[in-house]
Amino acid sequence: MIAFNCDYNEGAHPRILEALIETNMEQTAGYGEDQYCKEAETIIKGLCQSQKAEVHFMVGGTQANLTVISSILRPHQAVVCAVSGHINVHETGAIEACGHKVMTLPSDDGKISAKQVEEVYMHHKNDASFEHMTQPKLVYISNPTELGTIYTKKELEDLRTVCDECGMYLYLDGARLGYGLCADGNDLDLEIIAKNCDVFYIGGTKVGALFGEAIVICNVDLQEDFRYIMKQKGGMLAKGRLLGLQFKELFKDGLYFAMSKHAIHLAMRLKNGLTEKGYKFFIDSNTNQQFVIVPDEKLEELKETYAYTYQEKYDEKSSVIRLCTSWATKEENIEQLLRDM
Amino acid sequence: MIAFNCDYNEGAHPRILEALIETNMEQTAGYGEDQYCKEAETIIKGLCQSQKAEVHFMVGGTQANLTVISSILRPHQAVVCAVSGHINVHETGAIEACGHKVMTLPSDDGKISAKQVEEVYMHHKNDASFEHMTQPKLVYISNPTELGTIYTKKELEDLRTVCDECGMYLYLDGARLGYGLCADGNDLDLEIIAKNCDVFYIGGTKVGALFGEAIVICNVDLQEDFRYIMKQKGGMLAKGRLLGLQFKELFKDGLYFAMSKHAIHLAMRLKNGLTEKGYKFFIDSNTNQQFVIVPDEKLEELKETYAYTYQEKYDEKSSVIRLCTSWATKEENIEQLLRDM
Amino acid sequence: MIAFNCDYNEGAHPRILEALIETNMEQTAGYGEDQYCKEAETIIKGLCQSQKAEVHFMVGGTQANLTVISSILRPHQAVVCAVSGHINVHETGAIEACGHKVMTLPSDDGKISAKQVEEVYMHHKNDASFEHMTQPKLVYISNPTELGTIYTKKELEDLRTVCDECGMYLYLDGARLGYGLCADGNDLDLEIIAKNCDVFYIGGTKVGALFGEAIVICNVDLQEDFRYIMKQKGGMLAKGRLLGLQFKELFKDGLYFAMSKHAIHLAMRLKNGLTEKGYKFFIDSNTNQQFVIVPDEKLEELKETYAYTYQEKYDEKSSVIRLCTSWATKEENIEQLLRDM
Amino acid sequence: MIAFNCDYNEGAHPRILEALIETNMEQTAGYGEDQYCKEAETIIKGLCQSQKAEVHFMVGGTQANLTVISSILRPHQAVVCAVSGHINVHETGAIEACGHKVMTLPSDDGKISAKQVEEVYMHHKNDASFEHMTQPKLVYISNPTELGTIYTKKELEDLRTVCDECGMYLYLDGARLGYGLCADGNDLDLEIIAKNCDVFYIGGTKVGALFGEAIVICNVDLQEDFRYIMKQKGGMLAKGRLLGLQFKELFKDGLYFAMSKHAIHLAMRLKNGLTEKGYKFFIDSNTNQQFVIVPDEKLEELKETYAYTYQEKYDEKSSVIRLCTSWATKEENIEQLLRDM
Repeated sequence: MIAFNCDYNEGAHPRILEALIETNMEQTAGYGEDQYCKEAETIIKGLCQSQKAEVHFMVGGTQANLTVISSILRPHQAVVCAVSGHINVHETGAIEACGHKVMTLPSDDGKISAKQVEEVYMHHKNDASFEHMTQPKLVYISNPTELGTIYTKKELEDLRTVCDECGMYLYLDGARLGYGLCADGNDLDLEIIAKNCDVFYIGGTKVGALFGEAIVICNVDLQEDFRYIMKQKGGMLAKGRLLGLQFKELFKDGLYFAMSKHAIHLAMRLKNGLTEKGYKFFIDSNTNQQFVIVPDEKLEELKETYAYTYQEKYDEKSSVIRLCTSWATKEENIEQLLRDM
Repeated sequence: MIAFNCDYNEGAHPRILEALIETNMEQTAGYGEDQYCKEAETIIKGLCQSQKAEVHFMVGGTQANLTVISSILRPHQAVVCAVSGHINVHETGAIEACGHKVMTLPSDDGKISAKQVEEVYMHHKNDASFEHMTQPKLVYISNPTELGTIYTKKELEDLRTVCDECGMYLYLDGARLGYGLCADGNDLDLEIIAKNCDVFYIGGTKVGALFGEAIVICNVDLQEDFRYIMKQKGGMLAKGRLLGLQFKELFKDGLYFAMSKHAIHLAMRLKNGLTEKGYKFFIDSNTNQQFVIVPDEKLEELKETYAYTYQEKYDEKSSVIRLCTSWATKEENIEQLLRDM
Repeated sequence: MIAFNCDYNEGAHPRILEALIETNMEQTAGYGEDQYCKEAETIIKGLCQSQKAEVHFMVGGTQANLTVISSILRPHQAVVCAVSGHINVHETGAIEACGHKVMTLPSDDGKISAKQVEEVYMHHKNDASFEHMTQPKLVYISNPTELGTIYTKKELEDLRTVCDECGMYLYLDGARLGYGLCADGNDLDLEIIAKNCDVFYIGGTKVGALFGEAIVICNVDLQEDFRYIMKQKGGMLAKGRLLGLQFKELFKDGLYFAMSKHAIHLAMRLKNGLTEKGYKFFIDSNTNQQFVIVPDEKLEELKETYAYTYQEKYDEKSSVIRLCTSWATKEENIEQLLRDM
Repeated sequence: MIAFNCDYNEGAHPRILEALIETNMEQTAGYGEDQYCKEAETIIKGLCQSQKAEVHFMVGGTQANLTVISSILRPHQAVVCAVSGHINVHETGAIEACGHKVMTLPSDDGKISAKQVEEVYMHHKNDASFEHMTQPKLVYISNPTELGTIYTKKELEDLRTVCDECGMYLYLDGARLGYGLCADGNDLDLEIIAKNCDVFYIGGTKVGALFGEAIVICNVDLQEDFRYIMKQKGGMLAKGRLLGLQFKELFKDGLYFAMSKHAIHLAMRLKNGLTEKGYKFFIDSNTNQQFVIVPDEKLEELKETYAYTYQEKYDEKSSVIRLCTSWATKEENIEQLLRDM
């Protein structure tokens, strides 16, 4: 079986493992207060061009999302996101379990616009019963989105502007951030993201780390006592250095971006190859997730050899599937898949 | 000003006040463990033809909803309702604050169907990532709905059947139950409701009581320890007899239904009068809430004399407003309103 | 049976009922936005000599406590109180259900001292693992306490000072506030309380109202969006005017204090009478709750005629019981009890 | 610096790393549904002699505790533990953040007895206001305790018996389980624990794994939907195999116990060595945590070379410190410490 169903099928980039091996018997402070976490934080703050930022390392994305969101909101406040947002669909109600409503906006491509945010804000503000409704206070976006699309600099800046006007915060879930930043057509970078978001996280789990997400809290007002809430939510790793070590390795010389480019290169090979063969796509994605429309008959055949993610029925005779590349994808497997499709 | 904006503008039916006055200096046990609560429970169980049922009295609807729902669900379970459901829209995220997602179904008339419930259940069950999504476990309906529509016996029985098939519970919010049970075309009664719902509540606040809702827990499995959760959520009234007294008075000889009929009679007078005058309705309601389409110009004029609830823009020149009658509405005010519209 | 077991056995002072009757058919805005609530707020702010304060009316004490506390704290923050505090013992974990730990301090008399608060703060601050522990942020006291004792002006001011020094808030639960303010030896008044507390509430349920507590938020920083949280927790009464009317009546001409004095007068008659008869008290209380040590044999006899609250075993042959007076207690009943004891 | 302050200063046993390296580029299913997790589950169930048990792997202890506890309790139910219990003291209110009170029992040695549990149950049951108090439903113990002490088979069986009699559940936190099972005087094993506990976990983080805890749900009634709650709380690792691999390696041939014995051997060497030198212990521990009373003057000197955990002031001139050994402790470091003390 060759798996294209997700981007976390393998372990980690060999350099990550080497870093763990090399430091294995060192004795360090626990809970992220070691030297490696500090070094990783320094590197990331440098890349973000933000010395005021605070960086915290957590093991996974759901944990990061629920910790960030519950650290920001008061009980009556809600987080606004696309109806397809990960926090709305695939985290078993983690945000609600922390007490907060997820307010959803319609979206065809996984993105939401500044205009939509303004509308939800104005609708709330102008409703005579506003106190009987949750207060939209935080905007959650992911980049790339669940559908592989990416935000432009202009779109992100517009979201920042509307959040400022509405007294709202902006949080970017970067579970696959590397694959977004290395995509064709991308005009974002860490500096621009840090400048426009109150909080965001750089995903490691799906981009070459064994596990781990680096949360960057850019807005100084939101930094207070974050570590308490990490601990409360079960998200403070005892051997925190395991996270620091990995992020240091990922970012000290561009490994993160090199791996991301590899995945994008193969995703584009796949996209172009399938296009040539006449396949249509459910959505136009330049990142590592490709949503292809495939005849159901063909799918039956493919599933003997390949793992993919079934997305939804497209029409009577075909379905949408998701195919992912990652830092670990082998070129030969892509070529084989292209031949078999 | 004459208010038609809601059905809780006035105090209570005079007989309610008399009951309070008459018993005022009696000493009774607190927290609903008095004789009046017991008597009211007995009467209501009789009307429901259910001796196994348990009846609890709470002060308001949001309190009742959040207490019932959080008493039933485990952390990962969600309540399913129409997108217009009161718990989804007008309770400031009370359900989410108890940790549970509200899963919404589209609805034009405020109702949801057995088919929709089955779909949401099957969609969950068949999704490979089902554990990453909240589990639909409880169906919330209101009767009448937020749009004044009512369920038929057949519809309710179908919901019961699908809930049984899917291992789900059915909860009916009866904030305006009297106005539903006395509406033209209604074929439900307390017995049918008790037979088909796991839990429901009979609204007093909007139907002649000073305040109060009577929660009927029909499903014996859901009765355990309910009073603990009432207390925890701040919903156990110290002088619980105030609730028992009111519900005893409302139900001992049909006062509740007499008052409901009064409101329905005037609502139908209003509906027919407006229809004759050429007004159109946003939705066809046979209960005490009427949703009328009114030219914006006319609204400007009306608001000098009348309070109404602005619902939404209908088209460029007109809007939908809600006009409510209640147990307390005066016939002369309806006639005056008809003249002025 | 004559009940001395609590201070909410009867309904309300007749003037409260009269106010309800008189206004019964008036149409007012809902949810506390009516004229009566405004008037009551104005009167209370006047008595507190605080024009910046905000006053909100809720139905009961548990509701008030959980709403206030959850409106103030972030997720990792805890409320500190005496081990006997109502929120710790008798609210079925209402505070924890809102996500917050109740940190308890030992107390023999139901009170806590500034020194204790400072110690809990310093202990937290100086612990190397402080982020692994809940952060003490809010001090909860009640006056009178659960044991009938009261704070002096000096004690309250000291608590204020230590809270300021430690960046903590001070909240006073005044479920029986009238009985405290009218007690022998009391040197507090509403103005002093408002000056020293961030938030407090004036209890109506136990002091002559049918129900109701008036929350006074003195600290402007804590006023934002309080009504949202009231609604979310199910504590916003639809016919809010019922609360405004009662508090207006209680405070417009001193009725609240007159009723409180009545209860205190009879409590002192009871205390002195029992002392003369040789009874000992578990604690010295000058308020409406008296904790008497009674031979178990005597208790057997008393319970034929009187309701009391069993507190705890005192020694092999005797127990502590609580006897309460209230605004509604009849002098003749006290005299009869004294004769029978 | 040589660290004895805790048992998670180093990485993992080399065999753990080797297992990760060897399997690194394999493609497996995510979220714990891979072959390695299945194999590890099978091995653990075998050691527990319980084929009905379910095993789940989580990253850390706080996460495990909050997930297990919130999966078991209804909103009004509380967990009972020693006042020194980890969930009460060092998890930043994680349990309360899930809505549940932690009810504490006094304990000098970190253990609680069946008698104490019975008392807390009877006290609740017999209180007239029982519904106003949280309901004790789950007993939490840790073995070894926070003070290094261990339960005997008899004590554990007695707890089981009392839990059965009271309708309560028993949960054992085994963060340092290996060190308990290999201690002098221990008469427990995995089979006995599985037989007597409803749920327990086997700690990996502190016993040779990089990270990870294996939760064993022995009580079939408590198994339903556990994975949903793992996901909701952010505790379902994407690359779940990392956990399965580690536990397979730890348990396939006794590595876990071999490492535990190493730590105990050195802890006993330390204990005996210090005793010979005249040091006294705060508590008698046979496990890897030793609580020694040390003159403050001596501590000043030691902290130049050694990391230890400051526990508390003992008397004017001396303090209690905690010294830990672990699977990774070097004999030479123990000898050097003994020389320097």
